[in-house]
Amino acid sequence: MWLIKGCIIFFALHAFAISVKAENGHDLWLRKQTAHMVNVVCKKQSPMLNIARQELRRGWLGRAGASFTLTIKPDKSIKGDGYKLDSSGVQAGTEAGILYGVYDLLRRQQTGDLTQPVISNPSYERRILNHWDNLNGTIERGYAGRSIFWRNENDSLLTVTENDKDLWLEYARANASVGINGSVINNVNASAKILTAEYLKKVKAIANVLRQYGIKTYLSVNFSSPALLGKLKNSDPLAPEVIQWWKDKVKEVYQLIPDFGGFLVKANSEGQPGPQDFGRTHADGANMMADILKPYGGIVMWRAFVYSSNDKDRAKQAYTEFTTLDGQFRDNVIIQVKNGPIDFQPREPFSPLFGAMKKTSVMPEFQITQEYLGESIHLVFLSTMWEECLKSDTYQQGAGSTIGRCTDGSIYPQKYTAIAGVANIGLDSNWCGHLFAQANWYAFGRLAWNNQLSSEAIAEEWIKLSFSAGDAVQPTTIDNNDWQDRFLVPVKQMMLQSREAAVRYMMPLGLHHIFYPNHHYGPAPWWAPKDVRADWTPPYYHQADTNGIGFDRTATGSNAIAQYHEPLASQFEKPSTCPEIYLLWFHHLPWTYNVKSGRTLWDELCYDYEKGVDEVRGFQKTWDMVQPYVDAQRFSEVQSKLRRQCRDAQIWKDACLLYFQQFSQMPIPFDIERPVNDLDYLMKMNPLTYKAL
Amino acid sequence: MWLIKGCIIFFALHAFAISVKAENGHDLWLRKQTAHMVNVVCKKQSPMLNIARQELRRGWLGRAGASFTLTIKPDKSIKGDGYKLDSSGVQAGTEAGILYGVYDLLRRQQTGDLTQPVISNPSYERRILNHWDNLNGTIERGYAGRSIFWRNENDSLLTVTENDKDLWLEYARANASVGINGSVINNVNASAKILTAEYLKKVKAIANVLRQYGIKTYLSVNFSSPALLGKLKNSDPLAPEVIQWWKDKVKEVYQLIPDFGGFLVKANSEGQPGPQDFGRTHADGANMMADILKPYGGIVMWRAFVYSSNDKDRAKQAYTEFTTLDGQFRDNVIIQVKNGPIDFQPREPFSPLFGAMKKTSVMPEFQITQEYLGESIHLVFLSTMWEECLKSDTYQQGAGSTIGRCTDGSIYPQKYTAIAGVANIGLDSNWCGHLFAQANWYAFGRLAWNNQLSSEAIAEEWIKLSFSAGDAVQPTTIDNNDWQDRFLVPVKQMMLQSREAAVRYMMPLGLHHIFYPNHHYGPAPWWAPKDVRADWTPPYYHQADTNGIGFDRTATGSNAIAQYHEPLASQFEKPSTCPEIYLLWFHHLPWTYNVKSGRTLWDELCYDYEKGVDEVRGFQKTWDMVQPYVDAQRFSEVQSKLRRQCRDAQIWKDACLLYFQQFSQMPIPFDIERPVNDLDYLMKMNPLTYKAL
Repeated sequence: MWLIKGCIIFFALHAFAISVKAENGHDLWLRKQTAHMVNVVCKKQSPMLNIARQELRRGWLGRAGASFTLTIKPDKSIKGDGYKLDSSGVQAGTEAGILYGVYDLLRRQQTGDLTQPVISNPSYERRILNHWDNLNGTIERGYAGRSIFWRNENDSLLTVTENDKDLWLEYARANASVGINGSVINNVNASAKILTAEYLKKVKAIANVLRQYGIKTYLSVNFSSPALLGKLKNSDPLAPEVIQWWKDKVKEVYQLIPDFGGFLVKANSEGQPGPQDFGRTHADGANMMADILKPYGGIVMWRAFVYSSNDKDRAKQAYTEFTTLDGQFRDNVIIQVKNGPIDFQPREPFSPLFGAMKKTSVMPEFQITQEYLGESIHLVFLSTMWEECLKSDTYQQGAGSTIGRCTDGSIYPQKYTAIAGVANIGLDSNWCGHLFAQANWYAFGRLAWNNQLSSEAIAEEWIKLSFSAGDAVQPTTIDNNDWQDRFLVPVKQMMLQSREAAVRYMMPLGLHHIFYPNHHYGPAPWWAPKDVRADWTPPYYHQADTNGIGFDRTATGSNAIAQYHEPLASQFEKPSTCPEIYLLWFHHLPWTYNVKSGRTLWDELCYDYEKGVDEVRGFQKTWDMVQPYVDAQRFSEVQSKLRRQCRDAQIWKDACLLYFQQFSQMPIPFDIERPVNDLDYLMKMNPLTYKAL
Repeated sequence: MWLIKGCIIFFALHAFAISVKAENGHDLWLRKQTAHMVNVVCKKQSPMLNIARQELRRGWLGRAGASFTLTIKPDKSIKGDGYKLDSSGVQAGTEAGILYGVYDLLRRQQTGDLTQPVISNPSYERRILNHWDNLNGTIERGYAGRSIFWRNENDSLLTVTENDKDLWLEYARANASVGINGSVINNVNASAKILTAEYLKKVKAIANVLRQYGIKTYLSVNFSSPALLGKLKNSDPLAPEVIQWWKDKVKEVYQLIPDFGGFLVKANSEGQPGPQDFGRTHADGANMMADILKPYGGIVMWRAFVYSSNDKDRAKQAYTEFTTLDGQFRDNVIIQVKNGPIDFQPREPFSPLFGAMKKTSVMPEFQITQEYLGESIHLVFLSTMWEECLKSDTYQQGAGSTIGRCTDGSIYPQKYTAIAGVANIGLDSNWCGHLFAQANWYAFGRLAWNNQLSSEAIAEEWIKLSFSAGDAVQPTTIDNNDWQDRFLVPVKQMMLQSREAAVRYMMPLGLHHIFYPNHHYGPAPWWAPKDVRADWTPPYYHQADTNGIGFDRTATGSNAIAQYHEPLASQFEKPSTCPEIYLLWFHHLPWTYNVKSGRTLWDELCYDYEKGVDEVRGFQKTWDMVQPYVDAQRFSEVQSKLRRQCRDAQIWKDACLLYFQQFSQMPIPFDIERPVNDLDYLMKMNPLTYKAL
């Protein structure tokens, strides 16, 4: 052990690219700056304004000795927590707006992007992280250590230490710096315990910290809480005693946390209780809670992620179930809809619910944690995926009815607008497990603030904030242009290419959900035990047989395509006009089907997997080449993960091609590298841990 | 399990290249033929001549109804078991010669190489397999199952079944078909038990079977047998009671096996007992035995594989120790010398003992089992390595003093000539574990018969005997030219390239013995526990440090080069004239040393490892492309092993480059694929089994 550790240290210290600064990534995109003096002018005093002042003093990179004015004053051009910014000051209607303006200014000073005055208003009023943190400290789909909020039984479960508060404060600051203003601090698969007095006491402690940076606290609630906690005979949302129980509980919550944000509810989904258990609708359940929360200004975020085992097509159910309820929800209910109709796959077409709920508030739910995108091991910049979704045109109110515009109030007059991201944050010292996973947290915040931003701009910002020419080995020989050309440009290119690469080596051409179900990390297109419901097995999704591959969602199949507005429905219906990125999502096609490249479908699949592997090899090369510009620890951590990603990409390629080849009965084109793993080996092993399944 | 097996079978039966013949490789290069009628004419009757007649009837592919004459008659042009052959008959001086001639004829009929009369005489009188088979049924460095001769205690240890005899007969036939005429049937690390009466009874049973095909039986003996078995106080070779013990034992052996071949002795080597334990020399020990065996016509094969822990250079000791004894050995002692001065490495310069023992018989020892060349997993055709050795010029009696000529009696008047190959044979149904490892058994026999043969000719023969156009999926559409172009040529190319590829991905440029010592399979250039003698650790051999890499065997180093005859010594001494394949064997050179390509040594090392990996990928492609020409079982077995070989080559590359990079402190050239494994992972794991070390 000593030998091994010794070698790594030796390598880091003595290898050709000597990096001297230790850097564990904990500072995120808020790295310490050698700030200049600044004279902050502000008529008002408040804790939040003090934070704004303090941030300016810590990070001011403008002219030394300059003045910068913070002005709270309404302005027609400023909406919500928006702000007006120039190099001399920031104006906002709220204190939070001042804070956001200050973070924007500091970011622009660092990235060199402050040429003219700016007016910046948030796309969504509520920009919320969903933490799938269990009360025992584990995190569902968490890959960066345990919860920053909850501990397991062996720790002093509900005590709040100064360390806790420091960490929550750092967390809140990071969120505020990118405009996030809400946190759901427990798992959507919610334990009823969260609403007990003892847990609410801890929730209050958390809320007290988050509030300092303008973060509202929300809770996921279990729909059966009245029965489970209140010992009522059931939790029927129309039963008076149930309603009374919720009234009392909400009152208790608001007594502790006057600015409490509201509830997030996963109901009648994957075994969670809900109103349907009592013959009521989702609207009945959501409205009951909404009515109770309304006097306090609280909202209900009701998830549309529903499907049942007897569906012929899981992709259809959310639309079917929720569009029939359109118009029945209260104005403080927001239906929370995942970007795609299935479940956070590497690529999905958008959920047809977007734009289709014309009389109901809808909010997008993105997944920042990489449940299906390589956990905290693969470098996958998700911004491009979210951008793809937000810019997708639903055509529901004519061309230009993008998902962004359908959800941010531009098209439909929602009382509240919101967006949620499932957090990728844990106790790991770098917060997210993978250094580049920080960029996904960052990108979610930036897109939640401005859903028109380009991923390229976001990547460039994040790189400039997270690295700098000053990190380089020999700073005297590296000027900023050199750093831009040799570091910024290739790293940005890698990030922008990374999600498409993951799609290629995992499930190209519209394939989806062929993961090994117990981890959603590695491939298992073959996995289909007889005692498991079909829609939890990969063959349900890929439908491969000797005739071809893909899920037929056309009129002759499940007809899920009919859920899309024209001209999309017609476009998706025909293989020749269906975008090839969605080809096997919507169509079951023969292996010999000719795709646009002129190749057969089988060959195209082969070349896609091959290209995916090659792209990861390219990322490795990119990263190795920038070694002189990165401190040792962050360099070697990312290098190591890229190696694993490359091995994994190979396993994906081998598993999928060898498995599907049984059906295609066609050779892998001979200009492609051959698989290096046997199918039976991959099927017997959990290939991504090298442990038996 | 059912699922997995089902898939494989499905694949084999239904995939694009449908191969219908089941073929497990047990028939070796002696596959059943649809023979024509032949009229065998032979005046004499004997069991061996009957076998010759039977083989002709089983395999005759000449004109139907032709006559073929077997003639035993001396002829000046025929030496030993040689023969004269044309399409009408074979003439030989011995019955074995007739048999070899018949096998040659049948081979030529199958390979289409019988244009003119042939006279063929063996290069070596004794062509011997050394089985490192332990009496408990395990095989040292055996990778093809357990011993065909010995069983473990749980089986009826020394019983001989009809199945045993059938298998030994098949084994003897295979040997005879390539000219092998001797078998040492127990491990050189010999148990004394082999000379007990009960074991000798089984040896007799084995000898009785092998004799039918002209195979002499030999035994490895433990030098301490007199003390261990005879209860003598020691085994001093000059002690009269020890001599008497051996006399009695040899007499007992010859009473059981009148044509017994003799003893193989590993003495004072790696902990084995020997004459030096009693202050005697190797000559004292060997001569004692030789004198006793002489009346019976027996020989002593005495191994020169000696080294001790306090040597500064293990490569030097055998030469130092044995050249001083030159002239002291009896004429029925043959010194058995491994091809290289260390130990069967992927590449070594030849052992300087060859040609240097001018008054002593010397025999080469090759290793057919792939102890250091990927076991039965990697496809490595060893013929090119042996050819390289046999054709190496020692210059000991002027230019042209090749090792072949120095050992086959052409240069030195040896009373006996011999060559040994350490067998790769076990109970696996295909005998050798890897289908292509059969080619190494085959090639050893062919080179032992004719040490001038080219590896290309041998490979072509073996391919033509082991596969045929008739194996192809759709025989009606494949003619022999097609088969030659699309199967024979690429497969032969793969075989001929395979050993060089293994050298590249394991230890290029003269590197040696950087294996993980417990298995000699995977890389462990770092392995050097403090309690292990230095010459059993890789750093002893690679000598890597920040100054450079390689073992300095020049005059300023160990001066092992001085053991080579001029002009080799001068050529090896200077890096600029030293063949680059031996560069780091003889020199410690700076990482920045410029090799002939113009690259630095470090870069050259990187490109070599990279090329090695790429070559294995090429083999995979070659094999996949010939799928239509191979039966399903043999195809998929080889395909699977090539995949593993490719993964292993990657591990070799990663382990060696990342380990040596710590010293070179230079980047891996950026046009090379990056490592996909971390060094600390490779160091912690036994990477080739994915088990902890």
